[in-house]
Formats: sequence, structure tokens, C-alpha cells
Amino acid sequence: MLDMFNAKSIAVIGASETKGKIGYDIMKSLLNYYKGKIVPVNPRGGKIHGLPAYTSIKEHGPVDLAVITIPSHIIPATVEECGETGIKNIVVISAGFKEVDEEGAKLENQMVEICKRYDIKLVGPNCLGIMNTYNDMNASFSSDIAHKGKISFMTQSGAIMAAILDYADKKNIGFSRIVSLGNKAMINENDCIKDFMEDENTEVISAYLEGIVDGRGFIEASRTASRKKPVLVIKAGRTSKGSEAVSSHTGTIAGSDSAYEAAFSQCGIIRVNSLDELMDYSSALALSPLPKGNKIVILTNAGGPAIMTTDVAIRSGLELAQLTCETRQKLKDGLPETASVKNPVDVLGDASPERYAFALDTVLEDPNVDGIIYLVTPQSVTDAEGIAKVAIEHAATSEKPILCSFFGGTSFGGAEKLLAKKQVPNYLYPKRAVKSMKKLYDYSIIKDQEYPKPHEFDVDKVFVKNIIEDAKEKGIHTLGLESLDILKAYGIPTVGTSITKTVEETVKSAEEIGYPLVMKIVSPQISHKSDVGGIKLNLNNAEEVKAAYEDMMENIPKKEPEADLEGVQLQKMLSGGKEVIIGMVQDPTFGPMLMFGLGGIYVEVLKDVKFAIAPVTKIEAEDMISGIKTHELLEGTRGDEAKDIESITNIILRISQLVTDFPEINEFEINPLMVFDEGEGALAVDMRLMLKEGEINPLMAFDGGEGAVVSDKVELKED
Amino acid sequence: MLDMFNAKSIAVIGASETKGKIGYDIMKSLLNYYKGKIVPVNPRGGKIHGLPAYTSIKEHGPVDLAVITIPSHIIPATVEECGETGIKNIVVISAGFKEVDEEGAKLENQMVEICKRYDIKLVGPNCLGIMNTYNDMNASFSSDIAHKGKISFMTQSGAIMAAILDYADKKNIGFSRIVSLGNKAMINENDCIKDFMEDENTEVISAYLEGIVDGRGFIEASRTASRKKPVLVIKAGRTSKGSEAVSSHTGTIAGSDSAYEAAFSQCGIIRVNSLDELMDYSSALALSPLPKGNKIVILTNAGGPAIMTTDVAIRSGLELAQLTCETRQKLKDGLPETASVKNPVDVLGDASPERYAFALDTVLEDPNVDGIIYLVTPQSVTDAEGIAKVAIEHAATSEKPILCSFFGGTSFGGAEKLLAKKQVPNYLYPKRAVKSMKKLYDYSIIKDQEYPKPHEFDVDKVFVKNIIEDAKEKGIHTLGLESLDILKAYGIPTVGTSITKTVEETVKSAEEIGYPLVMKIVSPQISHKSDVGGIKLNLNNAEEVKAAYEDMMENIPKKEPEADLEGVQLQKMLSGGKEVIIGMVQDPTFGPMLMFGLGGIYVEVLKDVKFAIAPVTKIEAEDMISGIKTHELLEGTRGDEAKDIESITNIILRISQLVTDFPEINEFEINPLMVFDEGEGALAVDMRLMLKEGEINPLMAFDGGEGAVVSDKVELKED
Repeated sequence: MLDMFNAKSIAVIGASETKGKIGYDIMKSLLNYYKGKIVPVNPRGGKIHGLPAYTSIKEHGPVDLAVITIPSHIIPATVEECGETGIKNIVVISAGFKEVDEEGAKLENQMVEICKRYDIKLVGPNCLGIMNTYNDMNASFSSDIAHKGKISFMTQSGAIMAAILDYADKKNIGFSRIVSLGNKAMINENDCIKDFMEDENTEVISAYLEGIVDGRGFIEASRTASRKKPVLVIKAGRTSKGSEAVSSHTGTIAGSDSAYEAAFSQCGIIRVNSLDELMDYSSALALSPLPKGNKIVILTNAGGPAIMTTDVAIRSGLELAQLTCETRQKLKDGLPETASVKNPVDVLGDASPERYAFALDTVLEDPNVDGIIYLVTPQSVTDAEGIAKVAIEHAATSEKPILCSFFGGTSFGGAEKLLAKKQVPNYLYPKRAVKSMKKLYDYSIIKDQEYPKPHEFDVDKVFVKNIIEDAKEKGIHTLGLESLDILKAYGIPTVGTSITKTVEETVKSAEEIGYPLVMKIVSPQISHKSDVGGIKLNLNNAEEVKAAYEDMMENIPKKEPEADLEGVQLQKMLSGGKEVIIGMVQDPTFGPMLMFGLGGIYVEVLKDVKFAIAPVTKIEAEDMISGIKTHELLEGTRGDEAKDIESITNIILRISQLVTDFPEINEFEINPLMVFDEGEGALAVDMRLMLKEGEINPLMAFDGGEGAVVSDKVELKED
Repeated sequence: MLDMFNAKSIAVIGASETKGKIGYDIMKSLLNYYKGKIVPVNPRGGKIHGLPAYTSIKEHGPVDLAVITIPSHIIPATVEECGETGIKNIVVISAGFKEVDEEGAKLENQMVEICKRYDIKLVGPNCLGIMNTYNDMNASFSSDIAHKGKISFMTQSGAIMAAILDYADKKNIGFSRIVSLGNKAMINENDCIKDFMEDENTEVISAYLEGIVDGRGFIEASRTASRKKPVLVIKAGRTSKGSEAVSSHTGTIAGSDSAYEAAFSQCGIIRVNSLDELMDYSSALALSPLPKGNKIVILTNAGGPAIMTTDVAIRSGLELAQLTCETRQKLKDGLPETASVKNPVDVLGDASPERYAFALDTVLEDPNVDGIIYLVTPQSVTDAEGIAKVAIEHAATSEKPILCSFFGGTSFGGAEKLLAKKQVPNYLYPKRAVKSMKKLYDYSIIKDQEYPKPHEFDVDKVFVKNIIEDAKEKGIHTLGLESLDILKAYGIPTVGTSITKTVEETVKSAEEIGYPLVMKIVSPQISHKSDVGGIKLNLNNAEEVKAAYEDMMENIPKKEPEADLEGVQLQKMLSGGKEVIIGMVQDPTFGPMLMFGLGGIYVEVLKDVKFAIAPVTKIEAEDMISGIKTHELLEGTRGDEAKDIESITNIILRISQLVTDFPEINEFEINPLMVFDEGEGALAVDMRLMLKEGEINPLMAFDGGEGAVVSDKVELKED
């Protein structure tokens, strides 16, 4: 919890009586509402807005919160004074820090260090301030305090705060706490999520963010918070990629937004794209009970709008409730003959408030109904306010959500005001009521989701550590097929592979792996192996292996006299499997991000893949597989056998553990993983593992794996 | 043109002085605004609203328009009277027709027949009436006339008309003509599109439709209209499928909305999904010039909202204009130091109207800029009305669109009113301004699209006619592979295929077709040919063909003694091609609808297909091919050769002609069409053609093609 929201005394350092100064506005904002003690601080002393001004905070002594609005260069010294005085909470409104230049960034760091030394919590700098409507505290330079309500809101843009407050005032939308985050030098979104989660006056947590300071912390905070209260986030702006070049499919496909999309979905965040959606959904979530399911009734006084509303409902993933016979009979008995008693329930253009009330009562009682869209259009006889009152009365006691759409304009002014005043969600357009209902339903599912701790497999971590340390030492950046042992150490089955240097070794290895085999020459100088006869397919016995080996050693030097022939690689040829890719890239915000997709054109052309931030749970791994559009191809279609999805899940979980255990892995990919029929497992055929540049011995750094040892699957299939 | 909109005299048949009667409301609506002659008609005579009432229309004589609001059962007689009196335009407000029951439908038909006899044009029945703001005519029972404006609107739902009018009144959105279409007994959407297109006061044609009476007419009317004025349509409600069962992939995949989607796109209709979009886009299109391109500038006084706006712009398919060096220098010189002179141009939170004006002037002059999003957020010093006036002044003369988003609430009330009054498009949320800008851009492209007459190939229509007549005669419903000749007659290359009955014929035919070949038994009783050895693959010479034939004739009777062996089918085996599907189904509204997609999982699992209503132009055929998500697979990826897209285009056009020439074809599919590398053509391997049930000799009707002759491609590949 952030104590600052409950401050009983607030100092305004930089308080002013000069209109146009921020120190003037802040004093005004506080004086207008705040019941606690207000302490103006200004070196000139005297009186400010009738209150005695102190020349320094030291002169006054401790307060619960200091709001600072003085020029940035003198702020560190002032923060130091606050620390000495024993102040623990500061909001720095002033700009002139990191957002300006290097000099400002230094000032900001200085300020943060002082705060840490004194255990001070700091919001800002470069922000609009904070509000807590339940403490009548408007410590911001927005002149009006928000209406009291159940939504907490944090924003990385001051202008968005101003716009939202102005809009919410017009629509009578209420807030509990508001934070303008500014530069987030100390307090960031994660602190606010935790605070809002614990605040008893907050029912909905909402945020406008342009970036996230600590991705891992964000996932933990929001995953916990979203089980208690809905968390709605606008994430604006494209994120930039990490600066290191990518060299895997995973790296190429992972767009700038993939990680946010994955992380938000994994931690139960309701992502919204605009402020209208944010306000629409927040209002519904703050004011309405959650539906038990997705079956709604559309109650209407006109056919056309009900048809459009039905379309949107179906498209959004809601369903129209099938009313029971009893309900339909009751509606039939109580409504005029031409009314429609099927869902949508049309009470006709001349419907009175009483008729709406009767129909609403009836459908609310139906056990098949989870929620109501209460749709009203302006007809000549429509008593809009009366019909609004019906909705208000029912919403006050109903355990099912009732979202209104008074779908008109001028003639609905009174009804709209009434609904806003009584805090019943109302949307001009039925579409927005429906979409809000969908979010209520979505959140009813998120709320109950469990997050078991990811399973820990018993693996040989030391073995992998040694391989990676060795590579670092030698300055090797990329590990290829020769490192399939890494997979083995993490319990991931790999196709039989060997690299051997003599004919005897090769034959022996062939016998061990089993036939048929493919043989490839190993030589750092030869990149197009098939051109020089460096690939032999379909070797079926020891004799053929021997002949192939001898042929390569004899004939390749004739074509490539300069090449060092370091040996040959044998690999079992597989058939009957389906190729999938499992990859990982490091996201600059969230760390290791896994990718799953089907191999070949599915990844390359269709980009049909699914991402998730590691470590993943079993459910998340399964969601990755079932989340691709072409997952049917794994489940058995067109007479094909179903593939071994359990094996893929298991391998995703093991890779999740591997990349979590070794953060120095920058990119990783198994491509392909051959998946066989259900119960028959999967085998990694090839892999690539790239270490972070910074982790490698710089003296030795070269792209060691490329071309030297790595096979690639296109070659494997060449004929 | 519909004369009724310019009526100089209007009779209200069923006029009333009793409040609550529709005849009362209509009189009021007219009296409030209309300058022409108003003639109340009521059998009781006397005076109505101070005007002398006639006991019948005959008593008065002709008027330009009669509005009828009497009980439905006496309407036919009254319409007859109108006809006798020489009245040519009627609006029937009354309900009680087709929408109620059989009896009502009969009344409606009776009424239509009378109208046809007297050459009367009739709107309704069961509607709200019509308006023409430029004739001060409100012949509806909506009490207020719309504001004058440039949007014409037709609606199949009276409630939507009421809601829109109420909303538009609040937002000061103006209309020219409004039609409540009702049951569309005579005047339908096509008549209104034509009328609105020609009306000089209309700049934007808009519609809310639940169905379309005459699909072909609709395509023609809206294709012509959309070149002159933007046509925006909400199509609500799911359409029902034709009642005949479907038996092709095309039929299975074609969803209820596919035909609308295809038709709207082909005729340049801007499809919208909700009334807010309809109003947003209509306003922009009515009030703003069109942009020359999709490069916009976002002019803002705050960073956060500009970032969100940028996101939406990019997602919508707009681009941020790259400002010229000159522009940037000029902005730099004229704006405060911390302003952003890159796009988005941020004139900072304290921006005055003058600063907005300077920046707007500067970016409007930049040749790289096609349009402006004028974004304003409420900051403490913001002079919203002043900044609104700047937009108003510039919008009056600018040749580039300026769409405003005054993004706030209470404090922007004055600015909003000002912009609405001066008819400058303004949107609360920047998102909606951006999306409206996108529609301006979309329409700038639609406006210039050409629609050449589809090419007519020289084909052997008589030959196909004979085959089809013959099938009808024999009661055959489905034609399969044996009808590949139909394709030949339309110039579509087919793979070599024959059906023969003796070993000599078979060998001869094999020599003609060329090797390798596949042979299949032809027998109506055998459905699983491979189970009885009825498929032989890879026949490479006459001997093998002979042996295969003899083997089948000898051994199949042992397994299937009851089966009639009618002969064998030979088909050339192909390799190296890519399989595509070209199909057609009859849509109940628009007629023959073509489908294109890649074969196999692309169609079956990914449903990656594109539809178009036939006949199609060359451009439309090309769009079908490039419109599938996997079109890259035809263009050469991963080292594959590009396929012969020109051949596919050509074949689509020929099929378009075939299905247009023979409307009795109910479904049609070439599956697969094998497409070879660029320049090497394509070959139809199999086809199916289903005739409409009604067209077939009912005595003979049976599913003649099934199992009898048709090969299918799965079998072809079996081993």
C-alpha cells in the first residue's frame, strides 16, 4: 500500500500566490477539497492563500506527503531536506529530468539515490500529481477532483489524465485513486497495481501505459491483482526490438507487440485499445455484477436495433439465451399479441415503463439468462425517464448484470442523466453495451483462473552449464546440432546423431543409431554440401555407410582442395512425423518468450504461431498449441492420425525450464521437432542456441557455429 | 429520380385531430415545416388542424403525393381511388401487411397490382414515412424534421430512423433525404440509391438494410452510384442459406455473409457495422475534401494521446507523413524549443490558438501531407473555443481534410458546439477521427475505380446447353468427370481423361492420352474402388494398361459379383503442379458467387478462400487470387517457382462466363485445378456440376452422378 494516498498533512514545496504558477494551482486543488493540514512552503514566507507559509520544510517539520513544484536543479537538495525532516512520501510535479537531457537524467538519479537513502517513496517527476477521492485529496494541478467511484487509474501521460477527468466529469464516472506516473523514477505501474489491489475503495484497476519498467514484476503483480479485481490496460506505442540482430524464425516472426500480447493474456489483463473502451468496460466492471455465463437477453422496444445488437453479440462471442417455455408463456400472457417473446424480446414501440418492468422481471427470473442488454429507442410515446427508472430499480437488486443502451439523442437527455446519477451503466450505442457485457463475462472467467507453479523437471543443469561456459570461454556465439546433448540433459528426446572422424567410428556409430541414415560432411569451409557430394541420403547398412564415407573423403578434396574435412555427421532419417517449431527469443521487457508453430509454410508464410512468456504452466503450454489457427492439423483431420500433443506440451515445458535456468541464452530454436502419432512421442531433429553477445569471451568472439557443424533441414531433405 | 420528394401538394388520407393517432402526428409533422399545399382527407369531413378536410381524395382531385394512414384492409380500395384521381406517388404508413400474416401479404400484393396498373410509385407499407429537408417536407410521424445537410439515408427499420434523427439532432448532423423503406412492396433500396445519386443536395448515400430485394439490381445501382458519391451501408442480420443442400467445398465454406461481403466490395460500397460508424464516416465524407493519399499529420497539444492516435492510424492502414526539411525547419523556428516538429507535431500543453494556427498552416503547405488529425486535449490554459475557430477557418478553405478530435468532456462543450454549428467534423475520441480519415482515403480510391465490361470469350455455348438439357431430360442432378467436355467447350484445359469399355479402346485411348496413367473401374455399385483393386496407378505403357484392364475385369467380379462393370476411366497422372479450387454456389440474393482457394488443408482447415459475385472483371479475378492469405504460395516462396497465375485468372473468367450463361447451374467446382509453373498453364483434373433441383425432370430425378462415374482426388492419390 502507498501511504501517501491517506496523508493527513501535505506540504506544497513551491506554493505560490501567483496565478499561472503550478504552485498556485496545486494549492488551489488542495484547498478546494482537502480536509487535512496544508503546509505551504516558499522561501519568501508570509501567507499563501491565507495559510502561514514556511521558508523551508525543515522549519515546519514532518508531514505525511510533500508535493514539490520547484525548478528541477534545486530538487535534490530539497529532497535531502525532506529526508532529514523525516518525510517518507513525495510527489515531484516539476519537469526537467530524464525526459529532457543527460543533465536531467543525472539529476533524476541523484534524487532517487537520496530517496533510497531515506526510504522515501516518490511519484514522478514530470507528472500531474495524485488523487484519492476518499480522502478528498487532489494533490494535482487538475483543478477539479474526480467524482467518487470505484475505478483506480494510473497514467503515463498527463494529458490523458486531463482528458479522462474532463470526460468522466461529463459522464459522471467516478474514481477512487488516480496517479500520474510521470517519469516513473521510483513508483511505477507495479507499485500502483499492488496499491490499487489492496485499496478497499477500488473495484477496477485501470492504466494507460507507454512502457513497462520491470516486466517480470509486472507479470507477478498483475497476475495476482487480476484474480482479485479486473485489471484493464491500454498499452500505447510500438515497442522497439532488442538491439541484437535475430537469426531464428522465432526472432524474425516475434513482432514488437507479441510479448505484450502474450504477457497480458497470461496474467489475466483485459487489454483495451482506446479510452472509450477503457471507460466503457471499467464502468461496467465497477458497477455491475458478473454474469454466470455468456447467455444474454436483448430486451428492446424496436426490431432493427435488436437485429444489429444480436449481430454484435454473436460476433463478440456472446450467445442469445434460449428462454424457457415457462418464460415465453409468461411473456406471451403479459405482453401484447404482436410482441416478440423469443429472444430478442421486443416489447414494441409503445412500451410503457410498466411493460418494460414486467418483461425485465420475467427474463431475470429465467435460469437460462446470464445478463440483460436493456435497449430503448425513442418512439413518439416513449417515457424514457420512466423506463430508465425501471432499469435503475432492478439494477439495484439484481444479481445479473443489466447494461442499458438508450439509443437516441436529444430526447434521451433526461434518462441519460438519471442513469449516470444512479450509476447504472448506459451506452449510447448498443454495440458498446454488448462489448462491455462481453468483458464482464471475460472477467468472470479470468477471476477463477488458477496459476499453479510451473512444474520443475529433474534435469542435468550442470551438464548444460558446462557446455555454455565452454562456449563462452571459446567465444562461440551459436551452438547447433552438435549441442543436441543440451536437449538430452533436459530430457528432450533427440533424433540419433553423431559426428565421427574415421571410417571405423562412423560405421560403429551407424550401427548404434540404426538405419536408414543420412551422412553429411563436416567442414568449416564447405557451405553448399550437396554441390560437392557432401550429403548422402538413405544409407541402409554398414556397407553403404562405409562406401559413402570413403567416397566423400576421396572425392571432396578433388573439388575443394582447401577444405579441412573434420569428419562426418550421421543422422537417422525420419518418416511419418509432422514438423513443428519451438523457439525462444529474449524480449527487452519480459525476458524469455517462447514460440510454437507448425514448421514450413505455416510459420514462414502464414506466421501462424503462438507466443508465451517463460516460465509457462502446463495450461499455458497447452494453450500455445491449441492457440495456433492450424492446430487441427495436429489433432487429426482428413483421415490423418492425431499427433502426440502431450509430447509437445512436455517439451515446451522443458524448454521453458531451460531458458529460465539460463538467461544468457538469447535465442533458441528446435526446428524441426518431429512429432509422431499419439503416444509415439516427438524427436528434436535440429536446434540452434545463440548466447547473448555480452556473455561471450570478446577476444574469441566469432560466429563459431555457422556453417561449421550445423546441418539444416532443407539439406537433409535434398535429393 | 423519385418525384415524391419534390411534392408541391400532399394529401394525408386518414388525417385526424385526435392526439395519439398517426394521422394526427403526420398532419403535425407537415404543418410544422411544409410550405406546399396540405390536403387532409377523412370520411367525416369538417376541419382538421384548421384545414378543410375532404371526405375522399376523389372529392379533392390530384395531389403530388398521398400519405396513407388508414387500416390496411381498406387501403387497396383507397389506392384504387388515388389511381383514378391521377395520383402517382403514395407513402403507406399503415402496418398490417406482409409483416403480419398470409392475409396481409395478399392485401399487399393486391395493392402493388393496383399501383402497377396506374403507374404509381409506392413507399412502404409499414414505415415511418419520408423527408426532404430541402423541400421542408416531413411526411413522417417523426415530429421533428432533420437538420438540412448532405447525407441521404434510407432504413429498413423505423426505430433506427427515430434513433438516428434523435442522435443527429443532438450532434447537429444534417440530412437531405430520408426514407423509411418499410416492407419495400415497390420502392426498394435500389430505387433510393438511384434517387440519392441524382439528388443534387445529397453528397453521401447511406443505408441501414436487413435484406436486399434484387441483388443484381443492387450491384448495378450501387456500382454506378459509388463512383459519384460514397455509399455507406449497414447490413444487419444473418442471411439464411438457400434451401437446397450443398455438396461442394465451395458450398460448405460459403458463409451466410460471404456474398454480401463480396458484393459490397465489388461495387465500391463502404460497409459499416454500426450506427456510430455510419454517422462518423458520413459526416466526414459529407463535409471534408478527400485526401490525395494516406499520409496524415497528427497535430496535438499532448504526447500520450498522439501516441495512441499514431497506433490507430498505423493499424488502420494510414501512414504518418514524413514532413519535408523545410516544414520541419519552419516549425522549429516558429514553435517553442521543446515542441516536437516531427510528426506527430506536438505544439505543447500551453498552445494558444495562434500556435495551433501557425502549425496547421505550416503542415497544410507541406506537399507530403494528405490530411490532418487536429487533436486537442484540455490543459489548464487551453482556449478550446479559440483553437476550434482555427480549425473552422482552415477547414473552410483547405483542400486537404482536417478532422478534429477535441478529446475531453465538460470543458470542451463550447468548442464542440462551435464545430458542430460550423460543420467541421469533430470526434470525441481520436480513434474515430482516424478511422473516418481512413474512409475518406478509401473513398478517394473507390471513386476512381473503373469497371470495364467483363471480357466475353468465344465459347461453344450450344455444346454445353445440349449436355445440360440432356441431363435435365434424364433427371440427372450431378455431372462429374464425364462432363469435362463442358470445360473444353469453354476453353478450360483439362487433363487427358477417357472412359472406355473394351480392352482395345482402353489401350488406344491410353496411347492418345500419354503416360503415366491411372486407371479406375467405372461401376455404379462400387464406391470404394481401391478396396476391390479398382484403381491402378502409374501405368507406363500399353502392356501395363492391358494387364491392368484384364486384372480388373477378371478379379473385381470375384469380389463384387453383383456389380455392373461399365468400363474403365483413364486419366493422365500429373506432377509438379499446385492444387487450387475454383467453385461457384448460387447465393439467394446475388446469384452465382465464385470462390477461389488453394486445395487441401488451405480450403478445408484454414478456410482461406476469396469470393466474388459473377460475372467478374479481370481485375476482380486477379483480386480473388491475390486476396487469399496464402497467395504467396503461388507467387514463389522458399525457392519454389512462381505458378501460372495468368492461367488461373483466365480460367476464373471463363467459369464466370459459364455460370452466368447457365443460371440453372446450382453449384460448380473444379477441384483440383493443377497449376504449373509460370507460362506452363493449368489443367482441370476433376469437376462437379450440380443443376438446380427445379430444373430437372422430376420423374427421372435421382442423384445420378454420385458414385457412378465421378472420380475423386483422394482416390487418385491412393496407393
